[in-house]
Order: sequence, then C-alpha cells, then structure tokens
Amino acid sequence: MKRIAVDMDEVMADVAPKLLEAFVEIVGRRPAPEEFRGQKLYHLPEAKLVRKVLFERGFFADLPVMEGAREGIAELQRHYEVFIVTAATEFRNSLEDKFDWLDRHFPNIPWKNRVFCGDKSIVQADYMIDDHPHNLEVFQGKGILFTAYHNVDEHRFERVDDWEQVLEFFRKERQK
Amino acid sequence: MKRIAVDMDEVMADVAPKLLEAFVEIVGRRPAPEEFRGQKLYHLPEAKLVRKVLFERGFFADLPVMEGAREGIAELQRHYEVFIVTAATEFRNSLEDKFDWLDRHFPNIPWKNRVFCGDKSIVQADYMIDDHPHNLEVFQGKGILFTAYHNVDEHRFERVDDWEQVLEFFRKERQK
Repeated sequence: MKRIAVDMDEVMADVAPKLLEAFVEIVGRRPAPEEFRGQKLYHLPEAKLVRKVLFERGFFADLPVMEGAREGIAELQRHYEVFIVTAATEFRNSLEDKFDWLDRHFPNIPWKNRVFCGDKSIVQADYMIDDHPHNLEVFQGKGILFTAYHNVDEHRFERVDDWEQVLEFFRKERQK
Repeated sequence: MKRIAVDMDEVMADVAPKLLEAFVEIVGRRPAPEEFRGQKLYHLPEAKLVRKVLFERGFFADLPVMEGAREGIAELQRHYEVFIVTAATEFRNSLEDKFDWLDRHFPNIPWKNRVFCGDKSIVQADYMIDDHPHNLEVFQGKGILFTAYHNVDEHRFERVDDWEQVLEFFRKERQK
C-alpha cells in the first residue's frame, strides 16, 4: 500500500481566516487580498509581530476543518496509508492543540500515523500533500502543492486547489 | 552529510529506574532483574497496570540523561545530521514533557531536528539508533540496537551497549 503524507495547516485545517483576524488586531487595519497574494500574511513589512500568535497556546485548537478534508482523508484511507505530518516542533505550545484537534475532527487517524516534526526531509512516503513549497522541495517522493493564498505564484509542483482535486489526482494515479 | 535518527527513551533518557519504581508502587513488590530480562517490565502478567504511568503528565519530564549521551550526541553532530525521533504520539501528555526535556538537556538539538511520531517506518535517514527491535524492523536504513534490559535476546541488529560503543561504531563507519 502506498503512503501519503498529508500536511495539517492550510490543507486539513483552515488557518488563514484566524491569521487575518490576528493581523487586523495587531496591525490595526484590514489588508486587501492583493497585498498578501503570493506571500505569508506575516511577511508584510508591518506584520512581523503577527507571527507570534502561532506560538500561543490555543491558536491551533479551534481552527475550522478545510472543506472536503474529512471526506477526502476517509477516501484516501481506503486506498493508501495516510500519515498526518505537521511541522509543529517550532511551536512548542501547538503540540497538544494539534493532537487534540486531530482527536476531535479526525479520530480515525491513529496515533501511529501522526507525525509532529520540523524539517520534512525526514519523511519517508510516496506522496506529500502540502501548501509549502519548501516542504515539497526536500521531499523525495512525489510532491503535491495544495493551493493557499501564499503559494499562488509557485509553478514547480503538481497543484491541487481543493480536496476534490486531491481525490481526482489520486484516482488518476491509481489508473496509471 | 549522512543522517542519524536517535531515539529518546532508553537511548538518551533513562526510563528503566522510574518504571521500576512504578512497578514497586503498583504491584507491591520489587521484581528480581531476571524476571524482566528480555521483556518490558509491564509485560509481566501482574504488571499490565504499570504501563499506565507512561500516559501521565510529568512521567517523561524528569528522566535522567543516559550516561555519555550528551557528549555522544555532540560528537555525532560534528559528522552527521542528527534527528531525535521519538515514538511519542501514543502518549499525548508526553509531548510537552519530551519537548521541554530536550530544551533542558539538549538545547543544541534545534526544533527542525525533532520528530514526535508513532510508527518509525515514516523516518527517512541513513542510520537509526533505537532500543526497540520493532522500530528497526521497519526502518529502511541501517539499524543499530541500543542495549536495554528488554532487548538482550535480540540478535538481528548491530548492537551497541552504551554511548562509547555508539561513537566507536560511527568512527568505523567513517573509515569504510
């Protein structure tokens, strides 16, 4: 059975709206979408402080599930070994939040298939679905870029825009 | 630069004495060493309850550092990429304890090189140092068994008894 490593943030969990609210609160204005198209919100010059919210306990606890992720993961699990691989170790306080979030929304992902790491070059899998080009760059299997506002100018990887396209990609893979 | 995945429990952190004390407290007697030679303490028929201590917050927080581990890791880091890979996701409450333990005793292991996982078949590395045969079984690189009371009857892997032997093994590897 082939193995897929699935990222959490911006693939299973919708981080962008909560980060946008943190921007509004910390910077004091609402940015226009075109301002942060192709880059992380907290990479705007005035918004360096916004990133600190990622270090706060609770930030990752109540993120909404991305549309289609629940059904998508369930469908993938019928054909593949699915591992959830999240770059969590930069954020010590995210560890329990992310663990509990998986328990709550994806109880069918067993603890054996959960990976909290930093550098994803450590991952041994056939496929990786991730919104970060830097994670796919160091991955030795087939990388699949999940569209997010910050990666729209990236063209080196197979791209999927949503979970429907994820499933379509893998349906085609299985027919090869 | 080649990569080594180093296990925490029984390789960097000395778990056995604390587990033995839990056995004494829960079972009500002190087992003789020959009783648990070649098996985990909590696999003794009367000791199933002992394993529950692994799920308690704080259990992994104050374990002593294994003799030679600090100097050993530092020496390995001069020649290899060292990743700490610990099977932590079975024990939700161990995540922060293990993270903080690394910060306290191994602050030179950056967050990027920390992996909290369940099934170690996910690990992409050249070498793995581990006390559990089941982790080495599923690893695709070269597995090195670190001697612990429970693995003394295992003969399928290269064995090291302590950190001095770890360093000796890698010195020879580099001369190949």
